[in-house]
Amino acid sequence: MPLPQLDISGQLVFDQLLHLATFSDDPNPAVTRILFTDQDLNARAYVKQLMTEAGLIVREDTIGNVYGVLEGSDPTAPAVGTGSHCDAIPLAGAFDGTLGVIGGIAALGALRDVGFRPRAPLEVVMFTSEEPTRFGLSCSGSRAMAGALEGDYLATLRDVNGSSYLEAARGAGYGAASLDAMLAGARRTRADLGAFLELHIEQGPALEAEGLQVGLVTAIAAPAALAVRFSGDGGHAGAHLMHLRNDASLAAAEFALAVERIVLATGSEDTVGTVGRWEVSPNAVNSVPREAALEVDVRDVDADRRDGVVAEVLAEAARIAEARRVRLETRVVSQDPPAASGEAPLAALAAAVEHLGLTSRRMVSRAYHDSLFMAQIAPTAMVFIPCRHGYSHRPDEYASPEDIERGVHVLALALAQLAGDAGAEHVEL
Amino acid sequence: MPLPQLDISGQLVFDQLLHLATFSDDPNPAVTRILFTDQDLNARAYVKQLMTEAGLIVREDTIGNVYGVLEGSDPTAPAVGTGSHCDAIPLAGAFDGTLGVIGGIAALGALRDVGFRPRAPLEVVMFTSEEPTRFGLSCSGSRAMAGALEGDYLATLRDVNGSSYLEAARGAGYGAASLDAMLAGARRTRADLGAFLELHIEQGPALEAEGLQVGLVTAIAAPAALAVRFSGDGGHAGAHLMHLRNDASLAAAEFALAVERIVLATGSEDTVGTVGRWEVSPNAVNSVPREAALEVDVRDVDADRRDGVVAEVLAEAARIAEARRVRLETRVVSQDPPAASGEAPLAALAAAVEHLGLTSRRMVSRAYHDSLFMAQIAPTAMVFIPCRHGYSHRPDEYASPEDIERGVHVLALALAQLAGDAGAEHVEL
Repeated sequence: MPLPQLDISGQLVFDQLLHLATFSDDPNPAVTRILFTDQDLNARAYVKQLMTEAGLIVREDTIGNVYGVLEGSDPTAPAVGTGSHCDAIPLAGAFDGTLGVIGGIAALGALRDVGFRPRAPLEVVMFTSEEPTRFGLSCSGSRAMAGALEGDYLATLRDVNGSSYLEAARGAGYGAASLDAMLAGARRTRADLGAFLELHIEQGPALEAEGLQVGLVTAIAAPAALAVRFSGDGGHAGAHLMHLRNDASLAAAEFALAVERIVLATGSEDTVGTVGRWEVSPNAVNSVPREAALEVDVRDVDADRRDGVVAEVLAEAARIAEARRVRLETRVVSQDPPAASGEAPLAALAAAVEHLGLTSRRMVSRAYHDSLFMAQIAPTAMVFIPCRHGYSHRPDEYASPEDIERGVHVLALALAQLAGDAGAEHVEL
Repeated sequence: MPLPQLDISGQLVFDQLLHLATFSDDPNPAVTRILFTDQDLNARAYVKQLMTEAGLIVREDTIGNVYGVLEGSDPTAPAVGTGSHCDAIPLAGAFDGTLGVIGGIAALGALRDVGFRPRAPLEVVMFTSEEPTRFGLSCSGSRAMAGALEGDYLATLRDVNGSSYLEAARGAGYGAASLDAMLAGARRTRADLGAFLELHIEQGPALEAEGLQVGLVTAIAAPAALAVRFSGDGGHAGAHLMHLRNDASLAAAEFALAVERIVLATGSEDTVGTVGRWEVSPNAVNSVPREAALEVDVRDVDADRRDGVVAEVLAEAARIAEARRVRLETRVVSQDPPAASGEAPLAALAAAVEHLGLTSRRMVSRAYHDSLFMAQIAPTAMVFIPCRHGYSHRPDEYASPEDIERGVHVLALALAQLAGDAGAEHVEL
């Protein structure tokens, strides 16, 4: 028997996303939701409420990943998962990440509503902290799940208040007796996860520009993050003469322009480099900057080309520091491998797109996603929907109810195929 | 009868300065003391205690200027004042400003201890907020005293928490029923202030390099402060392709380097320009900077040359904004006139230096001081002592007990000459 027609309302998911956006440390429409803050906890409560209303069993792990589970007929079968994140960088929008969580709940709820009973368990997960805002580490939830997060490294991280990750997790009602116990409590393996899908806005302009409804992601670009700190001697802005200065912020300024120049010199549209974070100290109008700490993000779909840019950027930092007589510290915060999509989840998404008669293309994801780490333990693929002007990480980020509805529908049909039916393993669309 | 030998201990003043430095929002030896914070109030309490112990009458005005007064025999004579400030920018040191307050108290106390009774009242004042940290406005106490602070302008200022100046003043136990009443309550005129002296560390390397004990300041350089804000469209650091970006921080980087270039092109050692304050938004590693707000400080002893630099800097900001397709807002925060020292106070300082047999030179002050505004209502001069390596606005700012003792001694003898003796108008050193 083919799968009954699913009842999915893009408008309802859209409205839920806008409600979720009200849990923010900045005024609407800006969304600022940092790991384990009050607003993050408010968002988590709302996600759990939606999971419960969709008939899913809610569970949470030690690092704060939140699961909604639709039980399968075969309790020994590896689960089929979907999901994304609900944290938001300062002054972001309502759709990045959240679509994959709220849309994932809607997909599982729609399957359950038509009486679909999966063979393998179906799970939607809200990952803890895909964004690096609080501890400078992206994807802590999915990294922990994939066993790609070292306790020794995590132990070194502190937020601006000097709190450790474990302290912050405990403060939010998560955590464990030790950091290692917390990481162990979040761990998944190939044995209990069979496939993973993530629904996301494109965060780029291609689908909109080409008038396409859906993007099927074949690979996720490989990101690297660097921390670079220039230190000079500071001094009084009036009394310290120009030729005696070693102004750390001017070294930082030259460096940021060098990052742009080095990236553009690759001649590749797929290579991007950004100095996104600037901290100048003492940061007073009448004081020569003594310290400038920058964070740099370099990404490419080609890991070798990216690593070449990273090496050039670090060499340029050293050259600038010498020329401007400032001290230099650099640290490679992360340099993760790119991920190729799994064949089975990509085929399931393609079949769903064909069944629904949607226009689509295959594409790479230049943005970081939890799927990058899920791909380390299970065949993984992503599905993109258009977002207006390609805008993301901005208050005016936007995806239409119609595009959302198509994305959730594709996701639901692909999940059903991957999980199989309780009666017959193959699901007929 | 000549003035008796004064008993002044540089070590005691030095110890009091180090004690004052413990009232700080950053750990010792760094001093961070922002207008009307708890630590500012702690510092004020300590200053008032020292004034009382020195036998001075303590009074405070509506904007928070704190006076210690040694009464004169002629209550109608305009007062002779000295003093400086005790607030400190983030991560500053123990001597900038504080020396003029604690040293001023010591000078008046030493005169009182030998039975000196001045004809004109002698006052030492701790000015409210010489540093611009909290409201972006320097010298609010001395500006108000000189009538050089417009209520309409002050009403527009807010701190990072959105508080107004009047709210902050009231929270600290100062203020008045209205902003205008607060300003009126702080106002001094030529009729009640006859002369002003300020003792300060040099904040530059000249005295130390030339092996001189004292600097007599003939003029204070003219400072200008600009606020410059570049705004672009931001975007995701992975997905937003390089050729589509208008990164506000890269415009800021080009601008900061242009400020340095324009200042150096004057060929004048007396011209300095600093981009001391950088605020990048949203300031996340994975987000293209959407906004970069800078504060720029340009100073010169030559007001015309400084104004030429300011004009070029603003023109360059416009050129960069156009080339990088970012929006630009600029604002001239302040553009104060330079101040020449008064003849009588400078002569009194010179006589004291000669009497004590000290080595000295005449020099200009490149740093901003409350004296810049006191000079608008009374003949004013400054005396500098050496500071180690010329360092200032840094935790390792340092002046020796010996240099402090010489500075306080010069200050006390000059104040006595300017105030006159209760019996004979002229004071013989």
